[in-house]
Amino acid sequence: MSFVNVQNITDKVQAVMVQVPDARLREVSTSWVKHLHAFIREVQPTQAEFETACDFLVALGQSTGPAKNEIILLSDILGASSLINLQNDANPHAAQHSHHTDAALLGPFWRDNAPALPLGAKIARGPEAQSSGQALQVRGTVRDALGQPLADATVDVWQASPVGLYENQDPAQPDMNLRGCFVTDASGGFRFQSVRPAGYPVPVDGPCGVLLAAQGRDPYRPAHLHFMVSKPGYKVLVTQVFADDDARLQTDVTFSVTPGLIGTFVQHGQGPDAHFTLDYDLVLQEGEMAFPSPPIP
Amino acid sequence: MSFVNVQNITDKVQAVMVQVPDARLREVSTSWVKHLHAFIREVQPTQAEFETACDFLVALGQSTGPAKNEIILLSDILGASSLINLQNDANPHAAQHSHHTDAALLGPFWRDNAPALPLGAKIARGPEAQSSGQALQVRGTVRDALGQPLADATVDVWQASPVGLYENQDPAQPDMNLRGCFVTDASGGFRFQSVRPAGYPVPVDGPCGVLLAAQGRDPYRPAHLHFMVSKPGYKVLVTQVFADDDARLQTDVTFSVTPGLIGTFVQHGQGPDAHFTLDYDLVLQEGEMAFPSPPIP
Repeated sequence: MSFVNVQNITDKVQAVMVQVPDARLREVSTSWVKHLHAFIREVQPTQAEFETACDFLVALGQSTGPAKNEIILLSDILGASSLINLQNDANPHAAQHSHHTDAALLGPFWRDNAPALPLGAKIARGPEAQSSGQALQVRGTVRDALGQPLADATVDVWQASPVGLYENQDPAQPDMNLRGCFVTDASGGFRFQSVRPAGYPVPVDGPCGVLLAAQGRDPYRPAHLHFMVSKPGYKVLVTQVFADDDARLQTDVTFSVTPGLIGTFVQHGQGPDAHFTLDYDLVLQEGEMAFPSPPIP
Repeated sequence: MSFVNVQNITDKVQAVMVQVPDARLREVSTSWVKHLHAFIREVQPTQAEFETACDFLVALGQSTGPAKNEIILLSDILGASSLINLQNDANPHAAQHSHHTDAALLGPFWRDNAPALPLGAKIARGPEAQSSGQALQVRGTVRDALGQPLADATVDVWQASPVGLYENQDPAQPDMNLRGCFVTDASGGFRFQSVRPAGYPVPVDGPCGVLLAAQGRDPYRPAHLHFMVSKPGYKVLVTQVFADDDARLQTDVTFSVTPGLIGTFVQHGQGPDAHFTLDYDLVLQEGEMAFPSPPIP
């Protein structure tokens, strides 16, 4: 490198990055510098704006702990997490006509070791089980990409309550409430009893909440059920199934809703006697069965 | 917005950002999403790489405290801080033939309220004052862009010792050692006695140190003196003057060295009797006198 000026500095930094020994880190470092410098050249931050940006990034790390991860949350609300998820799910090596259920974000609320339950069991074991008109029966079949049912697949489900809280956010719910692990029967079938989940805001008590407010954005996610489906020989399917009658389907603050992930919540009866059914099949693609790290330690 | 897929998600996120009420935040948010998504589309991170990146960013914030700021350090070692500094220093509104001393990064070691000293005073008041063959006399004139000397300008100077440590990093040095504030005389002149600074590595005990090692980079900065020069009616000049005989002038890990910031350290005598002089003029541009925030609270 020779000496820097405003015209040549990006090339000078790139020239250092192309010397990085590890091929992948070299590729990432070079691209990182290219796009970071392009962003800075486009917005031309003042010194005061630079200081504000640095303070914001420091606060993200310092607000992260066992209860929440503000860095992942920032990635979520910028659509970066969903972009990475969609890219990895696209799977260019799959057969051309291989169909599978879209992946969606794991999110911050998955817990490992949810209770194993028999098919048909009720996962609502807290006060929400009495919620008038919110009962939900979920049924479906786990299939492979050719439509064949998969017996002995594990269906791990977790969801928020009718007031939009996961059990570990809500002292009123028993431990591991609205969570359960089921194993499909010989026909690939699974079924369980629950209550309708409600939509909820992402955490707004930290720097991401300040950013969302400044951006004038609705911090809510539409109501959804989380699924993690696994069977040896198949990629682990991590996804979310959204309620088709949620008014926020098109404004999910994390940009996660695909058409294929909208489930039809069919109402039966009216008023306090209303109950719902959701029939939704989950389709796996062949591959290595690798589980994500639990976001909550 | 409608539903997302890998092709349209960037447009969908941009469509949200163009609704941001504040014009500047709208501009920054839109550009941020554009360049962040372009980076992700180029490197196609795996889920494991995404988790590593998130862990790295969390660790930057959590390693930041009163002693160091790893977010600013990351910006420095990616050349982002220098790019922002060079952009802001370019000053497109200045007269075409207005020359001024290049700005350089404030760095993490400036302290407000350095001791006011008479012209010619010695700022080396610790054990380094006895360093054999390292004595340095600094002399110069503060001028305006037309070359006219500026009386009553404040010249705030700070520097590392001959072993490469600032006083607040080094228990062997007295408080505020190698720091001082001078006021120019009627001819714009300033002068002080010191010792030659040594180059030093940026902090490598945190995530940025891990990154630099993985990138195979030398973490050192070339030897330099820091100056902050101010007078009402002129922009505050924050800069660094580098030793012309430092072998690392072309590999500064923070990409800060411009040709105009290289000072000529003239040697007088040999061996233990050697001493040096540095003659360097500091040229201000007209503008608002605004001071930076002290990086160390």
